[in-house]
Amino acid sequence: MPLVVKAVGNMSQQISFKELLKVFGLGAVALVLGVEWFDWLMRRLRVRGPLKEVLFFPSTQTCLEHLFTPNSSFPCRCPLPHGKETSFSRLLRHLLSARASLDLCVFSFSHMELCRTILLLHERGVTVRVVTDRDYMTITGSQIGTLRRAGICVRHEMSTAVHMHHKFAIVDGKKLINGSLNWTVTAVQSNKENIMVTEEPELVRPYRLEFQKLWEANDPAKHTHQVTNGR
Amino acid sequence: MPLVVKAVGNMSQQISFKELLKVFGLGAVALVLGVEWFDWLMRRLRVRGPLKEVLFFPSTQTCLEHLFTPNSSFPCRCPLPHGKETSFSRLLRHLLSARASLDLCVFSFSHMELCRTILLLHERGVTVRVVTDRDYMTITGSQIGTLRRAGICVRHEMSTAVHMHHKFAIVDGKKLINGSLNWTVTAVQSNKENIMVTEEPELVRPYRLEFQKLWEANDPAKHTHQVTNGR
Repeated sequence: MPLVVKAVGNMSQQISFKELLKVFGLGAVALVLGVEWFDWLMRRLRVRGPLKEVLFFPSTQTCLEHLFTPNSSFPCRCPLPHGKETSFSRLLRHLLSARASLDLCVFSFSHMELCRTILLLHERGVTVRVVTDRDYMTITGSQIGTLRRAGICVRHEMSTAVHMHHKFAIVDGKKLINGSLNWTVTAVQSNKENIMVTEEPELVRPYRLEFQKLWEANDPAKHTHQVTNGR
Repeated sequence: MPLVVKAVGNMSQQISFKELLKVFGLGAVALVLGVEWFDWLMRRLRVRGPLKEVLFFPSTQTCLEHLFTPNSSFPCRCPLPHGKETSFSRLLRHLLSARASLDLCVFSFSHMELCRTILLLHERGVTVRVVTDRDYMTITGSQIGTLRRAGICVRHEMSTAVHMHHKFAIVDGKKLINGSLNWTVTAVQSNKENIMVTEEPELVRPYRLEFQKLWEANDPAKHTHQVTNGR
């Protein structure tokens, strides 16, 4: 330390008041720029936070063919409006972004385009797991049978006294889609509904754990075993 | 600039290699400490982010009297478990935290303790606005009539072909409660349900706007006017 003090002492003898003023002036400029940069960084970090998107329904009906066949060289000639982004097309885009897994927990599932989305993900090799309600999986128009016939693992709430009323999906274990929207045509095209899409880990994690809990609790093998043993 | 260069040149002549090494050593220590501090600051900023809480149902039944009469000097003697925090008690706490306003958008509302909560907020001078579904507001057990009789403003979806299927609440314009949970006993005590509570502005803002849109769209005065004019 005394060596450093000596060095600084010598330096101060060599630098005139005018020179010191310039050094301090430059220091002040550097400080102001530093504060500005720190503030900019903070704002960037806030803006670049995890994905948060809110979608409201009913959604306008538009052609969604480009989402299912993006490489097609033939333009779709259906009478629906083309090239318009809607709440529903945003939902499909989020689902189709799955690369490894899709965990879906939905009370009622009868929407054919949502079914087509899930089948497409399954064909692409995405691991799809579905938990649904016991009563609602057998209603007219339910797509649960179609999913099962395609080889997708579907489990249903085992208790007869309880409804599995969730409507959430987890894409690749990190993107949560959650809200009031059941996967039905009425919900998408008529009702006042909402979903929020987020990658906020504090929100995604509890839903991932809840899905795993429901998946294991509704394992049919486990239930058959329990019945066999009279437990 | 040349003066500064000169000063630095003189300083370098005065400081030996050993001294320079010490100065750089101290600089390195300061840099490491600075990086550590920055990392700590980042973690603190992340931890202290807006409220995010996820609650799953069914919720265990417990005594909730202490939430409604916190200053009572008589301990409750009901047979339910006391002093246990549950998903439902957390929900009530969030609702009872309202100081200025509660905007509620709920499909089905028949839970008596949730009704008691809303009435208590109304008594405390909190501005309560409710938007609900047209069909479900008249089902057996619905608490909508009780709210209206107490003087709380309730509007319902005007369209007969559409369900107002949202289940969200906004406390004081800044805390959002949203999920699959309808305000019914079955939902709270039996079903598999979820709600998330957040003060994340990016998520709260769209719901605040949606509520205002629904509130204005379902203004009965506006609709009477339209009918009168045959529009």
